Amino acid sequence: MRVLVLVLVPLLLAAQADALDLEKLTRHVDGRVASYVQTLREWVAVESDSSDVSKRPELHHMMNLTADKLRSLGGKVEMVDIGLQELPDGKSIPLPKVVTAQFGEDPSKHTVCIYGHVDVQPAKKEDGWATEPYNLTDINGNLYGRGASDNKAPVLAWIHTVEAYKALDMELPVNVKFLIEGMEETGSNGLEAMIIAQRDTFFLDVDYIIISDCGWLSRRPALTYGTRGNCYFFAEVEGPKQDLHSGVYGGTVIEPMTDLIGILDTLISPSGKILIPGIREAVAPFSDEEWKMYQDIEFDMENYKEKHLNPVPQVDLLAHRWRYPTVSIHGIEGAFSASGSKTVIPAKVTGKFSIRQVPNMDPATVKKQVTEYLHSVFAKRKSPNSLKVTMIIGAKPWLADTQHSLYEAGKEAIKKVFQVEPDLIREGGTIPVARTFQDVTEKSIIMLPIGGFDDGLHSQNEKMSRYNYIEGTKLFIAYLHEVAQIKKVIYFCVIVR
Amino acid sequence: MRVLVLVLVPLLLAAQADALDLEKLTRHVDGRVASYVQTLREWVAVESDSSDVSKRPELHHMMNLTADKLRSLGGKVEMVDIGLQELPDGKSIPLPKVVTAQFGEDPSKHTVCIYGHVDVQPAKKEDGWATEPYNLTDINGNLYGRGASDNKAPVLAWIHTVEAYKALDMELPVNVKFLIEGMEETGSNGLEAMIIAQRDTFFLDVDYIIISDCGWLSRRPALTYGTRGNCYFFAEVEGPKQDLHSGVYGGTVIEPMTDLIGILDTLISPSGKILIPGIREAVAPFSDEEWKMYQDIEFDMENYKEKHLNPVPQVDLLAHRWRYPTVSIHGIEGAFSASGSKTVIPAKVTGKFSIRQVPNMDPATVKKQVTEYLHSVFAKRKSPNSLKVTMIIGAKPWLADTQHSLYEAGKEAIKKVFQVEPDLIREGGTIPVARTFQDVTEKSIIMLPIGGFDDGLHSQNEKMSRYNYIEGTKLFIAYLHEVAQIKKVIYFCVIVR
Repeated sequence: MRVLVLVLVPLLLAAQADALDLEKLTRHVDGRVASYVQTLREWVAVESDSSDVSKRPELHHMMNLTADKLRSLGGKVEMVDIGLQELPDGKSIPLPKVVTAQFGEDPSKHTVCIYGHVDVQPAKKEDGWATEPYNLTDINGNLYGRGASDNKAPVLAWIHTVEAYKALDMELPVNVKFLIEGMEETGSNGLEAMIIAQRDTFFLDVDYIIISDCGWLSRRPALTYGTRGNCYFFAEVEGPKQDLHSGVYGGTVIEPMTDLIGILDTLISPSGKILIPGIREAVAPFSDEEWKMYQDIEFDMENYKEKHLNPVPQVDLLAHRWRYPTVSIHGIEGAFSASGSKTVIPAKVTGKFSIRQVPNMDPATVKKQVTEYLHSVFAKRKSPNSLKVTMIIGAKPWLADTQHSLYEAGKEAIKKVFQVEPDLIREGGTIPVARTFQDVTEKSIIMLPIGGFDDGLHSQNEKMSRYNYIEGTKLFIAYLHEVAQIKKVIYFCVIVR
Repeated sequence: MRVLVLVLVPLLLAAQADALDLEKLTRHVDGRVASYVQTLREWVAVESDSSDVSKRPELHHMMNLTADKLRSLGGKVEMVDIGLQELPDGKSIPLPKVVTAQFGEDPSKHTVCIYGHVDVQPAKKEDGWATEPYNLTDINGNLYGRGASDNKAPVLAWIHTVEAYKALDMELPVNVKFLIEGMEETGSNGLEAMIIAQRDTFFLDVDYIIISDCGWLSRRPALTYGTRGNCYFFAEVEGPKQDLHSGVYGGTVIEPMTDLIGILDTLISPSGKILIPGIREAVAPFSDEEWKMYQDIEFDMENYKEKHLNPVPQVDLLAHRWRYPTVSIHGIEGAFSASGSKTVIPAKVTGKFSIRQVPNMDPATVKKQVTEYLHSVFAKRKSPNSLKVTMIIGAKPWLADTQHSLYEAGKEAIKKVFQVEPDLIREGGTIPVARTFQDVTEKSIIMLPIGGFDDGLHSQNEKMSRYNYIEGTKLFIAYLHEVAQIKKVIYFCVIVR
C-alpha cells in the first residue's frame, strides 16, 4: 500500500537587493539616455492611431517594432492573433496582434507581467499642436509627441529595464513577462477574450501585474491604487421619418431635440448633484481616514484653478475626481453641429453621456437605474416620439489594497530612487484592463506611473519629460528588486511510500 | 407767359392674351423637356452650398453660369458686386455677385422683377440620401438632387419662360427683370444693402416683384400670401480653457454642456408651449374668417400624420405652421457630435435655436425678451461659466393682400393651366427678401410657387417633379399674360403755352 501525502512546505525566499547591483544598473541607464530618447523618437514617429482604420498598417508596424525590440533582448516573444474588428459599415479588418514576451522562467522567483499599449490617440498639427505631433521634439527637457507619455515611453522604460540587466549580464531578480496591446485607446477590443483564453497558460505562473499607463498627480512620485469605472450611455429620441425644415414644420411636430434636451436636463442639477435615483446611495461612504489622506496629498491648486475655474477645497476636489460618481454630457449626434446656422428639425438625435463609476456602484444596476429613470421622465412628457436608451460601455471601478506588499515594494522603490515618500493616489479616469485582469486572472495588480501630471494625455502638446522617462526607468529597476524581496511561498508535493 | 399744366391722362392698357400665342408657347415647352432637365442637371451638379466657405468657388461658378444663361437669351445682364463676407475667424471673402438681367424696356408695359436664388443647403450622401445629392437622378418622374426644388428649377422655369418667347420670336407681354442671388440659404448676406442702393435705379421702373421660392401645400396649385419671419439665436456657454478628459476632470468642474442643456430646456414646454415671457402675447388673434379658410384648404392629413406623428385637426395644424410662433432647437456646436463615444468635457458649447416670427411680433423685441430670459435663467444656476446670447438673424414676417390684382392674375393663370382654383396659403418658413422688397422698394409682391408639397427642401432626397417643373414653366408663361392685362396708368406731362 502506498500512502500519498501532500506536504506544504512554505519556503520563504527573500532575495536581498544588492545595493551595488542597483548602482551599476543606474549608471548604465544614465549612459544610455541618448539611445533611449532616439528609440522613443522612432516609436513616436509611427502614427499608431487605433481609432483611425486608415492608419491600421502603421499600427501593425508598431506591434512588429515592439515584438522585434523584445526579441532582440532574448525574450520568448509571441504575437497573439486576437481576431477581427467589425467596422460600422459591416466590413471587418484584423485587430493589431497582442505582443507577449517572457524573460526568465525560474520557478523560485516571482513572475511579474507588465501591461502596456503602443497605440495612440488621434493628433493633427492643426488641432493646436506647437510642434509636429509625430516628430518627437525636445524643448527644455520635455519630449513633445503623440503617445510619448501615453504609453510609449513607459513601455520603453520597462523594456530598457530588462535591457539594462542583459547589457550588464546580470540576472533579472524576477521573471518578467510583457503583454503589450494596440487597441487601448479605443476600448481594448479583443483583449478581454485573449486574457480569458490565456488565463491558464500565459497567466498561470504570473504573480503580479504591473500597469504603468497613468501619471503622477504633482511633481511628487505616486502609486495609483484606484480608478473610476465608466458607464457610457446613448439616449436616442426618434420622431419624424426624416429631418424637417423648421420653417415649414416648426410648431406642428414635437421635436426630438426638445425631448432629448428635456430628459438630459434631468440627469444632473446645476450644482452637479446626480438626480438619477439610487446612484448616490450606492457610493461607499467617505471615511475620515480618506479625508486626512486627501488633505496631505501634494496638489497644485493654483495651477488647477487657473485652468478650470472652480475654486473648491483640495479634499473636495480630489474626492469629486476620484471617489464620487459624475455625469458628463458629451454631445448630441444627429443634430446640427457645424458652425453657422441651419434651420433644421433633426429627425433622430442621440444624446451621449457617461457616468463615472466608483465603489460600490455596479454597472448592471446603473444601467437599470438610468434606463428606468429616463423612460419615466420621458413618459411624463407624453411625447409622440420614441426613446431608446443603451449602455455601450459598462466598465467597473478598480481599487487595490495599499497595504499589499506590492504597494510596500513600490513605496520602498520610490524612496530609493527619489528620496521621498510617494503619494497614494487614484485616477478619475478608467483603465478597464485593470479590472479585467483582476476579475479574470485574480492576480494582484499595481499601477506604477512614471508620467508627469502635466503630460497632456489625449490633448494637444502631449509630452514626456526626459526626467520622468529616465528616472522612471530607474524606478522600474528598483521596483523589480523590491518585488524580488516579497516572501514567496512554494508548495512541495512529497510522495511517501 | 408760359403756363405749365400737368395733365394726368390715365391710359388704360389691357393687353389681350392671345389664346393662340399661349398654345404655341405651351407646345414649345412640351418639346423642350429633355433640354430643360439637362440644364437642371448641370445646375444641380454645381455644389453651390453658401454655408460652406470651402465651396465658395463653386458658388461663384454658379453665379457665372446663371449670368451666361441670361446673356445667351439676349438679356442686359449685370453681375453686381455686393462686397465681402466676414468670417468668424476675422478674415473676409468675396460674397457671390448678384446677377441682374433685363428683357424689354417698353414703358407702355408692366415690368416684373423675378427674384430667385441658386445657392443651396448643405448635402452629403451619408446624411441619408438614396442618391448622390449633386447628381440629378430621375426616379418615376421625380428629379432628385440638392437644390432641385429650392430654388434652381423655379429659377430655370422663369428663364425657360423668357426663352420660349425668344425661340418663337414672340414679344414678351411685360418687361421682365431678374434678380438672382447666391446667399439665400445663409441669410441673404449683402442683398438688403444692394436693394437699397438700387432702389432708384434697377427697381425704379419695376411694378411687381415675383418670388417663386416656395411650394404648394398639396397637389392643388397655390398662391402664397404670407411667410413667418425668423429670429435665430446662438447661446454660447464657456467654461474651462480647453476641452477636458471627463475621467480626469469629471465632477470637479461645472460643465458648460450641463448649463447649456439646462437653459435650452427652459425655452419650450413638452407640449410645445413657448415659455419665454412676452412672446405669445404679441401674436395677432386668430379670426373666425381665417378659421373658415384654413378649414377649406386642401391638405393631405393622412400623408402628414404618416410622416410626422402628430395627429391634430387640420385648422390647428395649419395655424401652428403659418400664424403661430415656434421654437426649434437645431443643435449644439462644440460638443461631441460624431458617431461612437468620446469621453470629453467640451469647454465651449453653442446652442442654436430659432423662433419663427408672426404678426405682430417684432424681432428687436424678441431679441430683448430671449436675451433677458436666458440670462435670468442662467443666473439662477449660479454657474462659474459664462453665457453669451446673440441673435444672428432677425427676419420679420410678411403678409400680402390676396385681393390685389397680382393675386387675381395668379388665380386666372392657375385656372388656365391647371383648370382649378388655387389654394391661398402661407409659408411656415421665412423668405426674408419678401419683407425687404416690401419695406425698401414699396412694390407689390406675389409669391407664385411651383414646388411640390413633398419636395423635401433642406432635407435628404430633395426633388422636383418633372410635372411641376414643366407645368410650372407653363404657369409662368400664362402668368405674364395675365399680368399684362392688369390696367396700367400712364401719366403724361403736357406743357401748354
